[in-house]
Amino acid sequence: MQRIHVLSTGGTIEKIYSEQRGSVENLGSKIEAYLGRLRLPDTQIDTKRLMNKDSLEMTGADRAQILAAVRERLDAPIVITHGTDTMVETGLYLKRALGPLEFPIILTGAMTPLGFESSDGLQNLTESFFAARVLPPGIYIVMHNQALPVDRARKDKENARFVLVDSVN
Amino acid sequence: MQRIHVLSTGGTIEKIYSEQRGSVENLGSKIEAYLGRLRLPDTQIDTKRLMNKDSLEMTGADRAQILAAVRERLDAPIVITHGTDTMVETGLYLKRALGPLEFPIILTGAMTPLGFESSDGLQNLTESFFAARVLPPGIYIVMHNQALPVDRARKDKENARFVLVDSVN
Amino acid sequence: MQRIHVLSTGGTIEKIYSEQRGSVENLGSKIEAYLGRLRLPDTQIDTKRLMNKDSLEMTGADRAQILAAVRERLDAPIVITHGTDTMVETGLYLKRALGPLEFPIILTGAMTPLGFESSDGLQNLTESFFAARVLPPGIYIVMHNQALPVDRARKDKENARFVLVDSVN
Amino acid sequence: MQRIHVLSTGGTIEKIYSEQRGSVENLGSKIEAYLGRLRLPDTQIDTKRLMNKDSLEMTGADRAQILAAVRERLDAPIVITHGTDTMVETGLYLKRALGPLEFPIILTGAMTPLGFESSDGLQNLTESFFAARVLPPGIYIVMHNQALPVDRARKDKENARFVLVDSVN
Repeated sequence: MQRIHVLSTGGTIEKIYSEQRGSVENLGSKIEAYLGRLRLPDTQIDTKRLMNKDSLEMTGADRAQILAAVRERLDAPIVITHGTDTMVETGLYLKRALGPLEFPIILTGAMTPLGFESSDGLQNLTESFFAARVLPPGIYIVMHNQALPVDRARKDKENARFVLVDSVN
Repeated sequence: MQRIHVLSTGGTIEKIYSEQRGSVENLGSKIEAYLGRLRLPDTQIDTKRLMNKDSLEMTGADRAQILAAVRERLDAPIVITHGTDTMVETGLYLKRALGPLEFPIILTGAMTPLGFESSDGLQNLTESFFAARVLPPGIYIVMHNQALPVDRARKDKENARFVLVDSVN
Repeated sequence: MQRIHVLSTGGTIEKIYSEQRGSVENLGSKIEAYLGRLRLPDTQIDTKRLMNKDSLEMTGADRAQILAAVRERLDAPIVITHGTDTMVETGLYLKRALGPLEFPIILTGAMTPLGFESSDGLQNLTESFFAARVLPPGIYIVMHNQALPVDRARKDKENARFVLVDSVN
Repeated sequence: MQRIHVLSTGGTIEKIYSEQRGSVENLGSKIEAYLGRLRLPDTQIDTKRLMNKDSLEMTGADRAQILAAVRERLDAPIVITHGTDTMVETGLYLKRALGPLEFPIILTGAMTPLGFESSDGLQNLTESFFAARVLPPGIYIVMHNQALPVDRARKDKENARFVLVDSVN
């Protein structure tokens, strides 16, 4: 049985449509409900909700909180669900703060919220859990059938995807 | 074979999630794609897109355009997809302008866009096509297993539904 | 608040895919789970499971049980979910046995089980609940945007639908 | 851009519900339609339909045809969709016939057909495409967040999954 830690922080992947306001907002956690749609007979998922924020609103204190939660879970692979706008920034912050790793740390999210038509959320979660089992230690962005080392990933906002770039570190 | 006219005007039922802007917007028509999910072997649906607006932004000219389109289609039942915020206002305007009817006119829409989790859009379309076949002539709001005469319908925004009230006309 | 009785008897609408046997079977009730996907704020649904059978295997005793359950619920509209192969037979049996009605009795089902791609199950349930509120007293087959009096309905197996025929009674 | 070959052979993953016969059958290809639901911006999928069979009905000639198709595509990773009952047998046959590989060969399928409620088909396809990019050369069964070397995989029919066993070769 493979253990995987999940830390959820909000972002588009967990946004919900508000019928009263007609907008999409981070109002509550959705990850657990969607995990129930995956078959994971040999995997133990331990989920911890850290915050529920649009990643453009994340502060230094929020990132310190993520780092502290990661430090407590270095005994197994970690999947962090996160808004895409500052996912790379958080990943680079973790990379600078953490020493050598024994397991992979995966940052993932979605361009369209879980449960909306054409959502990429469940695909990205599926890939991230698989990546957590098979990738070598390191910090990665995993989405859309790509595993990008965090220091070589950049969001291409216009095309709603991440692309591989030359190392920025 | 029963003919039903569909006039689409926008509203929440047709809103789309924009990955670039992170908001829901009336960007294009969705009705036709969802009609393809219904089995209508004895029904001929003729769809006409009139506009694609949030109903809070509808003007007098927009309503005059809807009225003109309705007047051209009084030979069969009509289903009008419309934003819920001013659906009653448009229905009352049609009621005042039109004389006695031979077929029902149904206004419908959704609290959550078609294709989003927990959307009521396909349910409301299904009910409206059925209502178009079986209701007596008149103008109705059809949603959530209710058929409300338009002059007795009021939106209950807090509970995201329509309720029956005493006649306002 | 409109009360509607639901009697479930099995049929394709409730079939489940068995991973062990690779076939579809009537193994348990699915109706309640799918009712939860509909918005019915002004409707009270009271569901009673009678049996869970392929309608080709229904016996005279099964139909007598359905009749008894119907007789206890003549105070409100009734929706009976049923296999399509003998749905008309059951409806005609009820028609012969029951006297004048105060509310409609609706027989419905599906060509493809609830939850399978291209299923007509939720559409037919949606239409049946709406029909229960608005149709005059009588016994009907309601599916695919049609409400057919039971003595004028015939299954067209090749086209997977019901058609209107001259009265058989 | 990563190229991945897909060879489809049938199996539960592609079964379709027949409304006329009330059973699930291998009647046509479904893989392509479901590939369209995945976001694969950096992946080129080349699909080839070989056959459409329940894997219990596969013959030696069928397996020779699969082997020939694999031999023509050893320039990139290969994903083979296949019935689960003899998936291991086909994988071991390929392993014995092929020499050292440069890319991974992934066998995958489903316990419940694509598009049926609770289907594991899209999850397994998602995992297989990811595995095709990141696993070392070798022949694997990929399903349910597991990547099992084919000579260590066994189907556990009762629990509808594959388990890791001691090497059989």
